Amino acid sequence: MIKTLEWTDEGVRFIDQTRLPTEEVYVLSRTYREVADAIRTMIVRGAPAIGVAAAMGVALGVKQSTATDINALRSEFDQIAKTIGETRPTAVNLFWAIRRMKEKLQALSAMPLPQIKAGLVREAQQMLVEDIAANEAMGRHGATLMPSSGGVLTHCNAGALATCGYGTALGVIRAAIGSGKQIHVFADETRPFLQGSRLTAWELMKDGIPTTVIADNMAGAMMRQGKIKAVVVGADRIAANGDVANKIGTYSVAVLAREHGIPFYVAAPWSTVDLNTPTGEQIPIEQRSAREVTHHAGKQVAPDGVNVENPAFDVTPNKYVAAIITERGIARAPYLESLQELEGAAVAG
Amino acid sequence: MIKTLEWTDEGVRFIDQTRLPTEEVYVLSRTYREVADAIRTMIVRGAPAIGVAAAMGVALGVKQSTATDINALRSEFDQIAKTIGETRPTAVNLFWAIRRMKEKLQALSAMPLPQIKAGLVREAQQMLVEDIAANEAMGRHGATLMPSSGGVLTHCNAGALATCGYGTALGVIRAAIGSGKQIHVFADETRPFLQGSRLTAWELMKDGIPTTVIADNMAGAMMRQGKIKAVVVGADRIAANGDVANKIGTYSVAVLAREHGIPFYVAAPWSTVDLNTPTGEQIPIEQRSAREVTHHAGKQVAPDGVNVENPAFDVTPNKYVAAIITERGIARAPYLESLQELEGAAVAG
Repeated sequence: MIKTLEWTDEGVRFIDQTRLPTEEVYVLSRTYREVADAIRTMIVRGAPAIGVAAAMGVALGVKQSTATDINALRSEFDQIAKTIGETRPTAVNLFWAIRRMKEKLQALSAMPLPQIKAGLVREAQQMLVEDIAANEAMGRHGATLMPSSGGVLTHCNAGALATCGYGTALGVIRAAIGSGKQIHVFADETRPFLQGSRLTAWELMKDGIPTTVIADNMAGAMMRQGKIKAVVVGADRIAANGDVANKIGTYSVAVLAREHGIPFYVAAPWSTVDLNTPTGEQIPIEQRSAREVTHHAGKQVAPDGVNVENPAFDVTPNKYVAAIITERGIARAPYLESLQELEGAAVAG
Repeated sequence: MIKTLEWTDEGVRFIDQTRLPTEEVYVLSRTYREVADAIRTMIVRGAPAIGVAAAMGVALGVKQSTATDINALRSEFDQIAKTIGETRPTAVNLFWAIRRMKEKLQALSAMPLPQIKAGLVREAQQMLVEDIAANEAMGRHGATLMPSSGGVLTHCNAGALATCGYGTALGVIRAAIGSGKQIHVFADETRPFLQGSRLTAWELMKDGIPTTVIADNMAGAMMRQGKIKAVVVGADRIAANGDVANKIGTYSVAVLAREHGIPFYVAAPWSTVDLNTPTGEQIPIEQRSAREVTHHAGKQVAPDGVNVENPAFDVTPNKYVAAIITERGIARAPYLESLQELEGAAVAG
């Protein structure tokens, strides 16, 4: 099993996703600032993985704190949380994880400092365990939606590398294959960062799952040729109405799927559902450096000084989404109601 | 003015399109085999440019022939035509140009060999002149369809570099800007060969036309944000029913345009219209090397041995096409009739 990220006594250990698929290299972030850098530079990426990385970063910062009383620790916590919270704006899991760590700090605040520190480290480790369990549950729910055979398209990487293991969208595919379905994955290469060709293809090939890499602009042609039976992607934030922010290009895939009568599914842990964001309109979209578009492997591929747009995400309106697969179950339109029901069910349960 | 290709006494001179935008290098093809290589390796690309390059390649081969009678020259012509005809299967201009050269050979066959050779060289040079004139005519017709201001999306390169000068789709944009319209071009980078970021952006910036490069998967998001008022692309082959083969990804752009109520235009010279091909189904689609997808600037970006699909073109069904702009005028649906009318009008005129 791929260890996307891992708590160690020396710090947080990441597989360096900027160097896959040709090099399998692990890097150790020894301070919370180094964890923030790892998130910002996309050594670790994928909303669920970012969430747990953030929690571990907070735990690491708190563990290394020299504060001598709870008030000083609280203020240091806020500084740590601010640094980590400023790395990437779209994935709501980042803020969810920081909030959960803050709540844990509150709950433990009457304890001696060493116990608070140990408690926060345990909380971050617990989130990793829960993330994998959530992915496995999503897999069980989502496998039933997959075709019994044929091509399934995915965009970006919503796999083991985007999570703490098993994956969201790729977890659904893994579970479907585990249940005997004959699925061939089409992986959009996913410009500009190439999470599809570099990461999705790498982890699926490790598992012996048949995979074909295509350029993003080929998805429509593959659909028209009848090669795609379903689409399943992850998410960086799901609004209360079911609008989905995910990697740039997801919206185009959703429109194409609809045009071809192909179901478009989203798989994401409940921590990605943001009921405080009413619609996709309110989701902040990160703009990344022009250089990701103008340079390939260090080589310049666009003229000097050309304008570039490089939004890292787009929003797919709920009308294109056939179902949202979460560890709590499957939500279908109207999402405003179905997501509220899943929220309530968990509280009740 | 950019000289995409040029007849010289030593051979055919091309701007090397594989090295733009960082290096403006010219290469000389001294034999018809070298011209065939230049077409195959995409030193020259773009359906209209390929057509004229093929004609010049034929002229070069015939000029260098050591045949001593017309029958020997005819058989050498057929060998030259076969070699050049096998380079790229989709762009019909290639076959159109070879056929036109063959007809010229027939017409001149009673002449002494030196005059036949000179006549074929003149015919190829004439095709270059006609290509530029056709582009200017397309520009005049198409400019009226462009918005008076705002973003116009194009895919691949259908510009001066895809033709002998001025361009088809970019010719329409140039003419619209020349007539006072305030157009900002969005150029899809166009994976895997990056004709958009490398070539379209380069030639538009040379002309001072505002240009923004986006990854192919961003076009949908730009449309949804209202940044695109029209789409105009070139074509590699247009079937009798108006189905359009063009660079891979064009079909996705057409579907997205329709979803957003944005007109999708195709600009191409009449030599791209193939009334002998009934529908897009019959257009052969070139598959290119997996390496174009798995490697960026020589660096491997997909796992060893992964499956890849790399169709160089796709087919956009006529229902997505708002108009086809040719030098003979503008065709609109139903294309089976409007294209026949343009064919007949030219014959009559």
